[in-house]
Amino acid sequence: MKLWDKGTKINQNVENFTVGKDRELDLQLAPFDVLGSLAHCKMLTSINLLESGEFTLVEKELQKIFTDIEKGDFLIEEGIEDVHSQVEFLLTQALGDVGKKIHSGRSRNDQVLLDLKLFTRHQIEQLVGKAQELFKVLIENSEKYKDILIPGYTHLQVAMPSSFGLWFGAYAEALADDLALLQAAFKLVDQNPLGSGAGYGSSFPLNRKMTTELLGFDDLNYNVVYAQMGRGKMEFAVLSALSNMAYTIGKLAMDACLYNSQNFGFISFADEFTTGSSIMPHKKNPDVFELVRARANALQVLPAQIQAVSSNLPSGYHRDYQLTKEFFMPAFDQLISCLEMTQIMLSNVKVNKHLLDDEKYQYLFTVEMVNELVLKGVPFRDAYKQVGALVESGDFKFDGHLNHQHEGSLGNLCNEEIKQKLEKTISAFNFSKIDKAYQELLGRS
Amino acid sequence: MKLWDKGTKINQNVENFTVGKDRELDLQLAPFDVLGSLAHCKMLTSINLLESGEFTLVEKELQKIFTDIEKGDFLIEEGIEDVHSQVEFLLTQALGDVGKKIHSGRSRNDQVLLDLKLFTRHQIEQLVGKAQELFKVLIENSEKYKDILIPGYTHLQVAMPSSFGLWFGAYAEALADDLALLQAAFKLVDQNPLGSGAGYGSSFPLNRKMTTELLGFDDLNYNVVYAQMGRGKMEFAVLSALSNMAYTIGKLAMDACLYNSQNFGFISFADEFTTGSSIMPHKKNPDVFELVRARANALQVLPAQIQAVSSNLPSGYHRDYQLTKEFFMPAFDQLISCLEMTQIMLSNVKVNKHLLDDEKYQYLFTVEMVNELVLKGVPFRDAYKQVGALVESGDFKFDGHLNHQHEGSLGNLCNEEIKQKLEKTISAFNFSKIDKAYQELLGRS
Amino acid sequence: MKLWDKGTKINQNVENFTVGKDRELDLQLAPFDVLGSLAHCKMLTSINLLESGEFTLVEKELQKIFTDIEKGDFLIEEGIEDVHSQVEFLLTQALGDVGKKIHSGRSRNDQVLLDLKLFTRHQIEQLVGKAQELFKVLIENSEKYKDILIPGYTHLQVAMPSSFGLWFGAYAEALADDLALLQAAFKLVDQNPLGSGAGYGSSFPLNRKMTTELLGFDDLNYNVVYAQMGRGKMEFAVLSALSNMAYTIGKLAMDACLYNSQNFGFISFADEFTTGSSIMPHKKNPDVFELVRARANALQVLPAQIQAVSSNLPSGYHRDYQLTKEFFMPAFDQLISCLEMTQIMLSNVKVNKHLLDDEKYQYLFTVEMVNELVLKGVPFRDAYKQVGALVESGDFKFDGHLNHQHEGSLGNLCNEEIKQKLEKTISAFNFSKIDKAYQELLGRS
Amino acid sequence: MKLWDKGTKINQNVENFTVGKDRELDLQLAPFDVLGSLAHCKMLTSINLLESGEFTLVEKELQKIFTDIEKGDFLIEEGIEDVHSQVEFLLTQALGDVGKKIHSGRSRNDQVLLDLKLFTRHQIEQLVGKAQELFKVLIENSEKYKDILIPGYTHLQVAMPSSFGLWFGAYAEALADDLALLQAAFKLVDQNPLGSGAGYGSSFPLNRKMTTELLGFDDLNYNVVYAQMGRGKMEFAVLSALSNMAYTIGKLAMDACLYNSQNFGFISFADEFTTGSSIMPHKKNPDVFELVRARANALQVLPAQIQAVSSNLPSGYHRDYQLTKEFFMPAFDQLISCLEMTQIMLSNVKVNKHLLDDEKYQYLFTVEMVNELVLKGVPFRDAYKQVGALVESGDFKFDGHLNHQHEGSLGNLCNEEIKQKLEKTISAFNFSKIDKAYQELLGRS
Repeated sequence: MKLWDKGTKINQNVENFTVGKDRELDLQLAPFDVLGSLAHCKMLTSINLLESGEFTLVEKELQKIFTDIEKGDFLIEEGIEDVHSQVEFLLTQALGDVGKKIHSGRSRNDQVLLDLKLFTRHQIEQLVGKAQELFKVLIENSEKYKDILIPGYTHLQVAMPSSFGLWFGAYAEALADDLALLQAAFKLVDQNPLGSGAGYGSSFPLNRKMTTELLGFDDLNYNVVYAQMGRGKMEFAVLSALSNMAYTIGKLAMDACLYNSQNFGFISFADEFTTGSSIMPHKKNPDVFELVRARANALQVLPAQIQAVSSNLPSGYHRDYQLTKEFFMPAFDQLISCLEMTQIMLSNVKVNKHLLDDEKYQYLFTVEMVNELVLKGVPFRDAYKQVGALVESGDFKFDGHLNHQHEGSLGNLCNEEIKQKLEKTISAFNFSKIDKAYQELLGRS
Repeated sequence: MKLWDKGTKINQNVENFTVGKDRELDLQLAPFDVLGSLAHCKMLTSINLLESGEFTLVEKELQKIFTDIEKGDFLIEEGIEDVHSQVEFLLTQALGDVGKKIHSGRSRNDQVLLDLKLFTRHQIEQLVGKAQELFKVLIENSEKYKDILIPGYTHLQVAMPSSFGLWFGAYAEALADDLALLQAAFKLVDQNPLGSGAGYGSSFPLNRKMTTELLGFDDLNYNVVYAQMGRGKMEFAVLSALSNMAYTIGKLAMDACLYNSQNFGFISFADEFTTGSSIMPHKKNPDVFELVRARANALQVLPAQIQAVSSNLPSGYHRDYQLTKEFFMPAFDQLISCLEMTQIMLSNVKVNKHLLDDEKYQYLFTVEMVNELVLKGVPFRDAYKQVGALVESGDFKFDGHLNHQHEGSLGNLCNEEIKQKLEKTISAFNFSKIDKAYQELLGRS
Repeated sequence: MKLWDKGTKINQNVENFTVGKDRELDLQLAPFDVLGSLAHCKMLTSINLLESGEFTLVEKELQKIFTDIEKGDFLIEEGIEDVHSQVEFLLTQALGDVGKKIHSGRSRNDQVLLDLKLFTRHQIEQLVGKAQELFKVLIENSEKYKDILIPGYTHLQVAMPSSFGLWFGAYAEALADDLALLQAAFKLVDQNPLGSGAGYGSSFPLNRKMTTELLGFDDLNYNVVYAQMGRGKMEFAVLSALSNMAYTIGKLAMDACLYNSQNFGFISFADEFTTGSSIMPHKKNPDVFELVRARANALQVLPAQIQAVSSNLPSGYHRDYQLTKEFFMPAFDQLISCLEMTQIMLSNVKVNKHLLDDEKYQYLFTVEMVNELVLKGVPFRDAYKQVGALVESGDFKFDGHLNHQHEGSLGNLCNEEIKQKLEKTISAFNFSKIDKAYQELLGRS
Repeated sequence: MKLWDKGTKINQNVENFTVGKDRELDLQLAPFDVLGSLAHCKMLTSINLLESGEFTLVEKELQKIFTDIEKGDFLIEEGIEDVHSQVEFLLTQALGDVGKKIHSGRSRNDQVLLDLKLFTRHQIEQLVGKAQELFKVLIENSEKYKDILIPGYTHLQVAMPSSFGLWFGAYAEALADDLALLQAAFKLVDQNPLGSGAGYGSSFPLNRKMTTELLGFDDLNYNVVYAQMGRGKMEFAVLSALSNMAYTIGKLAMDACLYNSQNFGFISFADEFTTGSSIMPHKKNPDVFELVRARANALQVLPAQIQAVSSNLPSGYHRDYQLTKEFFMPAFDQLISCLEMTQIMLSNVKVNKHLLDDEKYQYLFTVEMVNELVLKGVPFRDAYKQVGALVESGDFKFDGHLNHQHEGSLGNLCNEEIKQKLEKTISAFNFSKIDKAYQELLGRS
């Protein structure tokens, strides 16, 4: 069954090719399709395109389908093209002609747009939750290991003293900033496209502000041509936001792989968190971080993939956008699993407490000595040259102690300030408003 | 002269290769380097690393250099590696040893980070200004031509009636959303990295909150390891934000090229805005939009280029980041020129007022007829089939008039609401705070 | 079961995450894993690491597994990590300790490398076959419609006369060139990595030239460190080669979508090859070409995705490469389906024979008139200005006939030469050599 | 002066924007533009579109311009749009009307195509030369240091013994394969587009086979629509080929940075090949390799950038292709400088000869012991478990000696075979044929 069936038989190759992975991906859209239909029907009733008795029937049936979806009792049947057709098919089976009327004032185009937006809001909510959990572990580790020094590198050269406190804390602050970028993308998503039809609106007197409220949206995509332009554009913006978080996670994973190498030995993991080799019995490989790193890197190319598909498509819908679901929809679970695995690993990390005993790390302290000389009145450039000469001759030795006290330094991590950064962003998401709207639509409030 | 000169001669090939395009790009950083030094020195004075008499001399000299930069009288001299060295060189020439002292508590790493952030704030301000100008033209055109209908397409197939009002307005709303994403990236930029040194802080008792305030920053990059991680990460986030705007402009340009083709003929331009052909005297090519389109498309790949360079670099500075300046810094002017040229072209566009007289556009109105039938009580699916039969037999004809009244439709463009979206975002940038801080540093307030 | 099982239980989250999609993807590697094992065991026998009696048992069992795979009777059982483990498990089940011995002198690393190379050779063979079929249809259409003129465009402006002969033929020649690039990538693939172990070779006296011959390889990856570097590098090279073909197909699909629009009307398709709209009964959308276009565009980003993952990984194996299978392996079927669908569509295309009657195409002939004047002795620049003046005044009119006779022009398509280009490339692939080697290993020759 | 000047003044903003960086980039095309014109005019003479006396004048003048270019005495004058206009301008200045005639049968489109192809052939020749030089150093180092062992890593974990012989040799073999891919791209370039005009051929009786021979091309782009499609497609294919080499160089540079770190200490460089730090006097940073790495990584994104610009452009020329010159043309020098700097660095590398004395590398030899047990008849899986137990208990110790003798292993590097791979590819380029053709055109043979 196709919504647009004209009675002509379609070529079987064409059918298989055009349906693609849609039926599989669409299953994830099912609950959102039902929520969207509930809001749409309520609005249709308000403008008399559905009678209030009809609405009662439709509402009850849609709520039943939603419950079935929750229970895992929903599937897209063989021969039915997509989730929208399946829902309409179930309605029509149960209610006859009334089921057909719910398509008034709506096109498959704005229906998909809406489903994708509701899906994306939901996925972002999951993502934010996982990011908060990882953030928590990072801050905890930062505090727990704040006094353990590690070498800090520039150019992969031993440079200056750093600490596990700084290292873990850095990624916490990075996550806080990533979430702020995600919040902006979320606001882009959180605008109602319903009513834009096939991208050119409708001659029905739709009440788009009503559906905006019913679905807990923050605002509308006003211009209907722009609303339709959201296909592609939303995916690009959201994946770009995800990429920032992936960038952070990828770098953390690279650090972890390096620090876990015998040549660094900063961190290690119990056997149950590593894998082995089929020919080298001593190997304890950090496969989790390698796969997190790979996934995080791959995720960062997704905006370019969306661009490659959308690029130079004139305005108006093109079927090309269907394909973007294939890259877009799984990206959330992929990033979520990276956050989750990183959190599991870092909750179980063992840190090496005696790193700086190693001879090769003595030069970490040259800057300390330069600074001590400067504080005694030696001009910086001269102090630099004096210490440089000691290094050159092999006579450099530092016995002082570290005194880093400014904001964000190893003696003053500012983790409280970093936590406040995060809190501020989290509170701006306002997920509870959405939840409340859904409960109302489902008659559960 | 190099800040880190150790007296060994460097291989000439190595020197040329490592300096690269730095001297050229660094010129654009000069004013920001001076502003950063002014703030840094004021702070050094507050913690007694510079005497107040010394500061007065340094301040005056730095302000003089700033004025020279404004007048175009500043250059990076032959044999001097970068802008930081040149400024220090000028100071030392004028003030002797005092000039050397300003490097205390600062590394070239946080100095570059700071310069790039101040530069980026400034460039974003320019960009926002240009985007507003284009937005204004788009809204004006949308209002001016709101009653002129054009065909709306899906799948490049004639679909439903649209209008120039919708077309221009769609891109205005897109820009408003793009600016909201840019605003989030701006907030990421607007955090002070100064004091993070080479990425591991300093044993000097720096007052980072003071420089934050002096430079008009919104907040700090607290954790010093994270601050350094900003190289690469900031570029990635900002270019991602720019990409969203480029996505919009690229699509607009594609539309314009298509609509200007003889096969569409929706819009045209006077000869002075088109170019010709060396062998076809009748050609009036829309080269401006083609180049805008190409540039906009190329810009969207820049985040992937940053990623390709930064990917899998462990934390800590690597010289690789120097290269990212080459992609990052020119991106602003490139996008600005796209906005500017689009604005010039659209201010001079001629629109075709009698498009829909053409026979081939009759089918635009099938949905109208379906809807009329539905409003008369025919179930949607049946109405769809009736009209489909008329189309199939060639008997379709629509004489009614359009009655699109819902939010964002061709009869109700909601341009006011779209303008409010923009205003809200613009006001959040708060550029005046920065300007005020700079005036104070320069002794001009 | 894992090849490297050390008796420690692995964390369940870690296990699920690290296995990923491997079991699913590995099924496609199964026949190649068996072929590789057959060659490896034969070679082990030749250096006395396997007794000839043992080999007879192993060979028979492996051939049986291969037959099972062909029949679809092979699966990777629950709890078994990958295809290599499954094959070894079956062998050990059937033969006991002998089954374990086949892993001597081989690492999972070179085993995967080998499997991927054999898989890739096979997929390229399928791809080449499909490309030839499409090429054939393109040449046929080029010949069939060689006399039907269409407008040729530059800058999307009506420019000069072209023809369906030229249009179809252009893509045929493009495919011929794409295949030459693919042939070079194929040669990169067609080098034997077996014996490189985990990337550092083996102390067993392996005979790598023997396995090279047994598997029908053209040459060896000699250096074992380089052989291992093939993970990532091979994928990058092959996907780059595929991208060139995708570039061609994507452009063809864009042309087809445009030419099928009512605004061009150059080509059309029967209802069974198009899809409809849920609200516009007159629509006949070219969804196939839109999806081909989208897929072709997405494919061209895959090398960047491989790069993003491999970038800055030092030499030696990293688990990251496992993830590249996810992008790499499905790419062949994706491109093959694009070729196939394009071939089906173009075998059923209807071309419009009376395009140039349309008034708007009169200017196509300006160059013809300029050239006629030049042949009469008027200098080119002057002829250009004369015709330009006629165009400007609206008096341009061309009644002559077209006389394009040079190589590759509309009167002389050179399709024979283009076919020869293709033939030359095809014959260089030499797939039969591989087939012969496989038959021998399977005891079927 | 513009070739297509129609007498209308162009808007100044439009002019500046559309010219872009063309005048700057075009200077590099100048010698090739002249060579192309020489061949074109000779052919025009053969079909009587130029008199033989006229040709003598034009030929002499063009040869003079070529000599001026060689001497650095050529520039594109203010107000002249591009290199083609400048050459025609010089001819017309010197010869009057005759100068104008050379544009017959040629469009700016096929002229640019040709210039770019001749430029690309030349750049590839330079690149191949540099790659050979680097290859030579790699093989020399491989031979020189073949007995010095280094740890081999998988998953960044100490794995098995490797050697400098293997390490250097691996990159040599990689380069040989990269050059084979480049050779295929070169053949794509080495096809004559001249005569395709604006992409739709010409009504003049051009002899395209003659210009093919005169310019030393291997073959023709036959179909004129396909020839024009070369804009974008050639850049994509060539940059993809360059990317393979960049992939190799980037990985080598990453290895070098890592191995130069104090945590590895495998290699080091004299002070003149490293740079320092402004606050850490002991630093010897491998900036050259970091910048090589960054450049190599950035280069690999260029095909995606070409794709982003070309994607979804229908066939026929679009001005968008002008922009691709900006990414395409500098790529050669960028890659050449990476090859050159890598060669300089590796010619001056110091290798650490006593690496394996370090305790942490003892586990390198576990596989050796497993293999020894296997050779004594212990089944592999059992041997693996025995050695694993020794590792687990800390009792692992290996006193044997390495006996790697198979092809490509550390005892048998096969550098001769690798050199033969390279030679075979180099000889297929046949640059001398091109050189001979040019000498003839310039009257120098």
